[in-house]
Amino acid sequence: MKISDLGERTLIKKIAQLAAKTVSPDMVGIGDDAAVTRLSQGSWLVTSKDLLVEGIHFLLPEISAQDLGHKSLAVNLSDLAAMGSIPRQVYVALALPAHLDSEFVLAFYEGLTALAEHFKVAVCGGDTVASPGPLVVSITAQGEVRREEVLLRSGAQPGDVLCTTGPLGASAAGLLLLQADIDCPTALRRSALQAHYRPWPRVEEGLWLARQGVVTAAIDISDGLLKDVQEICEASRCGVLLREEKIPTHPVAEALAPLYNQAPLTLALNGGEDYELLFTVPRHAFSALAQAYQERFQTPIYMLGEMTQERKVQMITKEGNWEKLEFTGYQHF
Amino acid sequence: MKISDLGERTLIKKIAQLAAKTVSPDMVGIGDDAAVTRLSQGSWLVTSKDLLVEGIHFLLPEISAQDLGHKSLAVNLSDLAAMGSIPRQVYVALALPAHLDSEFVLAFYEGLTALAEHFKVAVCGGDTVASPGPLVVSITAQGEVRREEVLLRSGAQPGDVLCTTGPLGASAAGLLLLQADIDCPTALRRSALQAHYRPWPRVEEGLWLARQGVVTAAIDISDGLLKDVQEICEASRCGVLLREEKIPTHPVAEALAPLYNQAPLTLALNGGEDYELLFTVPRHAFSALAQAYQERFQTPIYMLGEMTQERKVQMITKEGNWEKLEFTGYQHF
Repeated sequence: MKISDLGERTLIKKIAQLAAKTVSPDMVGIGDDAAVTRLSQGSWLVTSKDLLVEGIHFLLPEISAQDLGHKSLAVNLSDLAAMGSIPRQVYVALALPAHLDSEFVLAFYEGLTALAEHFKVAVCGGDTVASPGPLVVSITAQGEVRREEVLLRSGAQPGDVLCTTGPLGASAAGLLLLQADIDCPTALRRSALQAHYRPWPRVEEGLWLARQGVVTAAIDISDGLLKDVQEICEASRCGVLLREEKIPTHPVAEALAPLYNQAPLTLALNGGEDYELLFTVPRHAFSALAQAYQERFQTPIYMLGEMTQERKVQMITKEGNWEKLEFTGYQHF
Repeated sequence: MKISDLGERTLIKKIAQLAAKTVSPDMVGIGDDAAVTRLSQGSWLVTSKDLLVEGIHFLLPEISAQDLGHKSLAVNLSDLAAMGSIPRQVYVALALPAHLDSEFVLAFYEGLTALAEHFKVAVCGGDTVASPGPLVVSITAQGEVRREEVLLRSGAQPGDVLCTTGPLGASAAGLLLLQADIDCPTALRRSALQAHYRPWPRVEEGLWLARQGVVTAAIDISDGLLKDVQEICEASRCGVLLREEKIPTHPVAEALAPLYNQAPLTLALNGGEDYELLFTVPRHAFSALAQAYQERFQTPIYMLGEMTQERKVQMITKEGNWEKLEFTGYQHF
């Protein structure tokens, strides 16, 4: 049904119904000039804001409305996780081209509220306007953190080891499939597209890491390992030495990359959108942290290199050669 | 300079410099995964989120970058004012078409940060992405309020009087000039365009009204008096009887409307974007409130009608006739 037939007011009521189950009764959610919410006393607010633009960040109708709702929230929760915060509330605004109908909008909110419910995040309000151009999704997500536990990009020291919460490159493998489809096993295809369309933010992991008190810097891998480690290096005024043999390439990337004559490592280094956490810890703290993490999450953390005084991004290859690396992945402009 | 020549990183650094004077040193503003801020202990958060889309909400190059920055923040601060809250922080995201250069972006932030500084609002972060379509501005503004002082749309009672903080229709007069320019005095032109491009949010007024403890419902006039009073009526489950002779039409609307063969009253009723506050108070509380307001702000509040049990929007004309009114102004879809 067209939004102009359904009516803006009815659409917003339906959105408010979807969001209601995420909002506690003493809050004011969708429907007034602004939302009224509360965090715990004395805690600090952590706020992430992302714009996702059709044709730049996603393609329609390739991505379903539900997946788009999921992913739009997931990438913001991932930012909050990379700060070590507990997600609390989210504000959503959509600029809608005329060809999208109210079913699309409601399916978008279904995908988004399902993820919000999982992490007990209140969907509190926003805006819905017309767009003469592409669909634009604007998300503001907010969490809370104890000030002394917040994870910044800027605390890495030379000698710290660089770690990640999971193997990399699966989302980029999914993107390869979308850009040029090929014949491959159904399960592999499903895994690759799942990684690309429904990334799972490392919310509990980020919070847990922050509370250990040993993480010196953190970021989430959105633009690609190389670009994101460079962000840590710049903010922390140091460099990094990656060890090729230690970089965890995702099995999905290993299976799909060769079919496109690409190295799985390229997807892991430059692919982006993995939404794993990338963080640094002092070398002496690593093994206790890794063991405790394994016990808590039943999955390892991966050490993939160490921070250096020399402000370069370098890698020791499997053959033992030193290479200086340049980021070749996604550029915003 | 093109953004791709300047580089995204340099652009963000320059934006961060503009924003830095609005952010206190213990906060984390622009430059990490998310912003880290704090409100007072035990207060409630009020959050407004608006999308402004080129071609729908504004036209380029008609509006200057500075004015667009000012207005984008002003309309959100106006929402916070209509809730009776103190504005504290703002998050900004831009989807930028390729033809806009870095000077445009920085001038936008200059306009925005100037208003933010005036109201001591911290500009804390956001996102800057490319757009294959129109310029899209996404603003999330956040304030704080004591829960018992928050102004909602939903508390008006039959018998309450309806009031506004200022005369209406000047912004709509400015829009007439933009849609079809005509010869008119320079000072009049300037006032009309100023009202349209640089609305001034009623921040102190909203906060003051909330603290008097007598306002039963409030909204800001963004879509037009008729549409916005209808929002109060629906949320409060009542109707309204407007008195034509009491509706304060702005002198700029009175001077310009006749040149377009329009009634000034039409601009005041349907024009929108006045960003005055529209609110209700019990009849017995009006005169003391009006007197105290006059003393505090050196300007009157205007009583323009009363709330009714009958759920209609009606008006008594100057001739004494009763009319049922329909909103004929801006529809989002």
